[in-house]
Amino acid sequence: MIMEEIDINALLIGSKSENGELFKSLLSHLVDEHLGWRQNYMPQDPPLITPFAQASPAFQQTVQRLKSVMEELSVRMRKGSVPWESARYWGHMNSETLVPALLGYYFGMLWNENNVSYEGSPATSLLEEEVGRDFSILFSFPNGWGHICADGSIANLEALWYARNIKSIPLAMKEVKPELVAGKSDWELLNMPVEKIIDLMSSLSEVDLDLVKRNSARSGKRIEDLGKLIIPATKHYSWLKAADITGVGMDQVVMIPVDDHYRMKIDALEKTIEKLVSQQIPILAVVGVVGTTEEGAIDHIDKICSMREKFAKKKINFYLHADCAYGGYARSLILDSNYDIIPYADLEHELRENRVFQDVTNSISKDDYEALKALEEVDSITVDPHKMGYVPYTAGGIVIKDKRMRDAISYFASYVFDKTIDPPVQIGPYILEGSKAGAAAAAVWAAHRVLPLNITGYGKVIGRSMEGARNFYKFMSDLEVEVEGAKVKSYTIYYPDFNMVDWVFNVEGNTDLEAMNKLNRNFFIQSSIYSGMPYLKPILTSHTDFGREEYGESCVGVLKKIGITSPWGASSHLTVLRASAMNLMMYDANDFAAYEVKLEGAIKEVLKPCLKDGSK
Amino acid sequence: MIMEEIDINALLIGSKSENGELFKSLLSHLVDEHLGWRQNYMPQDPPLITPFAQASPAFQQTVQRLKSVMEELSVRMRKGSVPWESARYWGHMNSETLVPALLGYYFGMLWNENNVSYEGSPATSLLEEEVGRDFSILFSFPNGWGHICADGSIANLEALWYARNIKSIPLAMKEVKPELVAGKSDWELLNMPVEKIIDLMSSLSEVDLDLVKRNSARSGKRIEDLGKLIIPATKHYSWLKAADITGVGMDQVVMIPVDDHYRMKIDALEKTIEKLVSQQIPILAVVGVVGTTEEGAIDHIDKICSMREKFAKKKINFYLHADCAYGGYARSLILDSNYDIIPYADLEHELRENRVFQDVTNSISKDDYEALKALEEVDSITVDPHKMGYVPYTAGGIVIKDKRMRDAISYFASYVFDKTIDPPVQIGPYILEGSKAGAAAAAVWAAHRVLPLNITGYGKVIGRSMEGARNFYKFMSDLEVEVEGAKVKSYTIYYPDFNMVDWVFNVEGNTDLEAMNKLNRNFFIQSSIYSGMPYLKPILTSHTDFGREEYGESCVGVLKKIGITSPWGASSHLTVLRASAMNLMMYDANDFAAYEVKLEGAIKEVLKPCLKDGSK
Repeated sequence: MIMEEIDINALLIGSKSENGELFKSLLSHLVDEHLGWRQNYMPQDPPLITPFAQASPAFQQTVQRLKSVMEELSVRMRKGSVPWESARYWGHMNSETLVPALLGYYFGMLWNENNVSYEGSPATSLLEEEVGRDFSILFSFPNGWGHICADGSIANLEALWYARNIKSIPLAMKEVKPELVAGKSDWELLNMPVEKIIDLMSSLSEVDLDLVKRNSARSGKRIEDLGKLIIPATKHYSWLKAADITGVGMDQVVMIPVDDHYRMKIDALEKTIEKLVSQQIPILAVVGVVGTTEEGAIDHIDKICSMREKFAKKKINFYLHADCAYGGYARSLILDSNYDIIPYADLEHELRENRVFQDVTNSISKDDYEALKALEEVDSITVDPHKMGYVPYTAGGIVIKDKRMRDAISYFASYVFDKTIDPPVQIGPYILEGSKAGAAAAAVWAAHRVLPLNITGYGKVIGRSMEGARNFYKFMSDLEVEVEGAKVKSYTIYYPDFNMVDWVFNVEGNTDLEAMNKLNRNFFIQSSIYSGMPYLKPILTSHTDFGREEYGESCVGVLKKIGITSPWGASSHLTVLRASAMNLMMYDANDFAAYEVKLEGAIKEVLKPCLKDGSK
Repeated sequence: MIMEEIDINALLIGSKSENGELFKSLLSHLVDEHLGWRQNYMPQDPPLITPFAQASPAFQQTVQRLKSVMEELSVRMRKGSVPWESARYWGHMNSETLVPALLGYYFGMLWNENNVSYEGSPATSLLEEEVGRDFSILFSFPNGWGHICADGSIANLEALWYARNIKSIPLAMKEVKPELVAGKSDWELLNMPVEKIIDLMSSLSEVDLDLVKRNSARSGKRIEDLGKLIIPATKHYSWLKAADITGVGMDQVVMIPVDDHYRMKIDALEKTIEKLVSQQIPILAVVGVVGTTEEGAIDHIDKICSMREKFAKKKINFYLHADCAYGGYARSLILDSNYDIIPYADLEHELRENRVFQDVTNSISKDDYEALKALEEVDSITVDPHKMGYVPYTAGGIVIKDKRMRDAISYFASYVFDKTIDPPVQIGPYILEGSKAGAAAAAVWAAHRVLPLNITGYGKVIGRSMEGARNFYKFMSDLEVEVEGAKVKSYTIYYPDFNMVDWVFNVEGNTDLEAMNKLNRNFFIQSSIYSGMPYLKPILTSHTDFGREEYGESCVGVLKKIGITSPWGASSHLTVLRASAMNLMMYDANDFAAYEVKLEGAIKEVLKPCLKDGSK
């Protein structure tokens, strides 16, 4: 099939509402289709709100009341909100969203389906099932299953719930169906490969499966025996919460230091596992991150997978989850239009053919390619449409490698799930949440149908964002401005794996970490909501702190480059400015160049009060 | 303040799209306000999508592609969806939603704020904080705090997380700050009142509090010591899931039988607690339900509270949660325009004054009044705007009695929560989820501003729904039809506490339970999505099964009334038809009467193939 070329320009409202009229006309059309549907269900039925009722004073007053409230809402939104869509926004993870997703959400919401049960969502459950299939294809899981969930924290929690319950199944079998695991020691049971556990579960009758499940971790028994949860130091805080909530416990969390690309150190991971094993402590799960929240760093999933293979040979097995909440959609970049993985040797050619990057020298590093490719080997993946899928909040997602894993967490309630009825799709029994918006499924579905999850579709979206990030990275790497007689230089912290740019400003000659931190903190305050109405800010940024405790030595190199001589002590931290460069219009070299002048002016304007504040 | 009268008619699109034009004009106005805002942020910046770019073939093709996808979505929605808004829909919990909520959701979504952090949602975080305050006021919690969450299951999970962590704090204190609990036995620590625990926590320095928290249940330690989770047999299945997910474990769940109003038996609850206590097993938490999912039953919260008082005197203390996911908004009925509780003696007068019920003989039973009133005494409450708040999915909610409880579950991540910055509102650190839609907050906020959570606002909404349910109840209680020569009579199962009606059909003379179950099951199939396109069905219903295992003897009375002589054995169940009568237009006696004829005809039409199937 020859695909027409997709122009992302047509899928955004635009920072200047360039496609505003188009959006409105599509929306109006959809609303009309819904209104007509309502009116024509049993057309013989009379309307219940008559023109007389509509003319009544109470009705009219209520309309006025409604209008006043909406006016107040409008004032508050326009006063408080941040223009994420602007080329002047270089802050925390946000941006404008895709028109198909917005329209899908809106349209879906008019029908108010609830995907917890098929009965509550005969149209949108099917859409969600297709979205789940899209996720499976995105990560090359031929037997996978996925669904939309509230957000990445919930997806991560669900993943740990999966890991905990699955890993506990062999212990439950020993208790209630010992013949299945005859002759195995507890250590062997706790190190049974995930696949093997699922195979055993699948071999059971429904009654036996229920019995085993009932005696798994869901009973509350022996959770503390399951072992450690290993995560990178750059982890999202939702992992600590998930350990807390699931009863696995923070005592079981082990953090692995990161390198100067903010990727989990593979040798440290291996040594940690070896040490734990030598102490007869099992590994419940390992988490790798694709697109860390603060750096966009992509862990070496490929190396983690080969290490897992190596340990498997020694009969050490753990659950492996990839937290791709932010970066998951980037895998579209390495899939061709048939969703086959593009060999690395062909990637540059394919990227060029599909015009993913405007600057044809832009590509994807071998490291990132291998990491994205290896995702097909992990057990489950968090992937959030409301992040790099450019779908409005909320639409998170999770996908598991093997549909049968669902048996470890499923629940059936009689009023929503009559086992004797066989609906085409069932989502509710296999998820952590209950009620969930069919509208979210319609939104993600519409975005995925317009933009295939491969190099011809979402690949172009991701490419634009990455290219914008690289433009911004170059700009911030070279920037030097004179403000109030001081020379201020900007330093980027690392070359972005993905689309996040972290940088700091430093006054020429300053060697003091604290003074530099203060300057950047002030810059953040002055270029954020914390110093007045965001609508008036000429540039908007975000910030974070890299603490020694979590980031270890990973900051030392950059501090040296900047010329900071303060010691990097135990309680030190580096305050960095931080942009999730999600903007989809800053990829273009000419457009970026036009904005460089504006951004430079804006930075000088913002730096002025910061320097006055004694930071120079 | 004299409030103008609110006319609910003006707040619905209407089953025949009667207010469709009004909805469209308000929506169009709001979209324009957003588009103008985008365009005028830094008006000197040029648009990046030029008319030339818009004229390009790729752009035009992409628009066509977008239109095709939206057309496909429209076909699928119109083909598959159920007309919840119709007076012919008497099925599972769903209905059309309120216009202010829809508009708020839509408008909010254009700005795509993320309420996980104030920085990501400077406008909508404030709206959510106000919604939380609304919830506190609704339940008369002067020191309460609430927020929106994904859904009721997540709210219940969060509540159990609260209960688990709070109840574990005394054990943690013993471990790391023993002076705080000197001389107390473990039994006493496990029976410390919630209030006392919070007071102790509040007395700690930040460092000590962190230490105690770190050694609470969040560490993973001693969760199994915390005791039992007691729930009614009518519980929502999310409670079993919550026990599973939190590591409390299903082994700790104790279910209490219900009476023939499907309310938890208070004497059984008391005896259960006494028995556990006599075995030195602590009670982690008790859950009461206001508006059970299958019956709309309202547990005797007042009696549970007095029982708690009684036990407290014996130094037995537990956490008390009310699952008002469905019924919470009903508390508006007993609050006057100042949000003070209306004395029962004045209630009938106030209901009449505020025209809550059209039929002035309709009121609220003393039982329900006392239960709703007593909610001010519980520790936390689940309340879902997307159920009886008539807000689109998803918008669940939870509210806690004492803001300080949050310390037991809080997390702070540096990139979202800089402790040195003091934003006006912080939600993210105190919730189970992460990213969350600011749009949901805008939706609930708008609905609450138009409709105060008292007898002048939401009270009228709830009243309409209850009155519609009572009309339907009367209709289904009296119905007798002749179909294919057989006389079929309808029997309601109980007088609705709230707005849920359960009923069965039986062929005159039939005494066999299985035959009756088969008839009702067939009726459900024939009046639901399971037998063809819902748009063509003249009536739409839902069903559930009351199993002996969970419902005990509560069905015996009704079976006798119907004339069923089959034994009610251990594996018996009763298949009932079930309507969450959420429709807001069926309160009117004349309108209902006009539809009675249609419904009777529809029922006969649906019964025909059911009876042919040999069920008579």
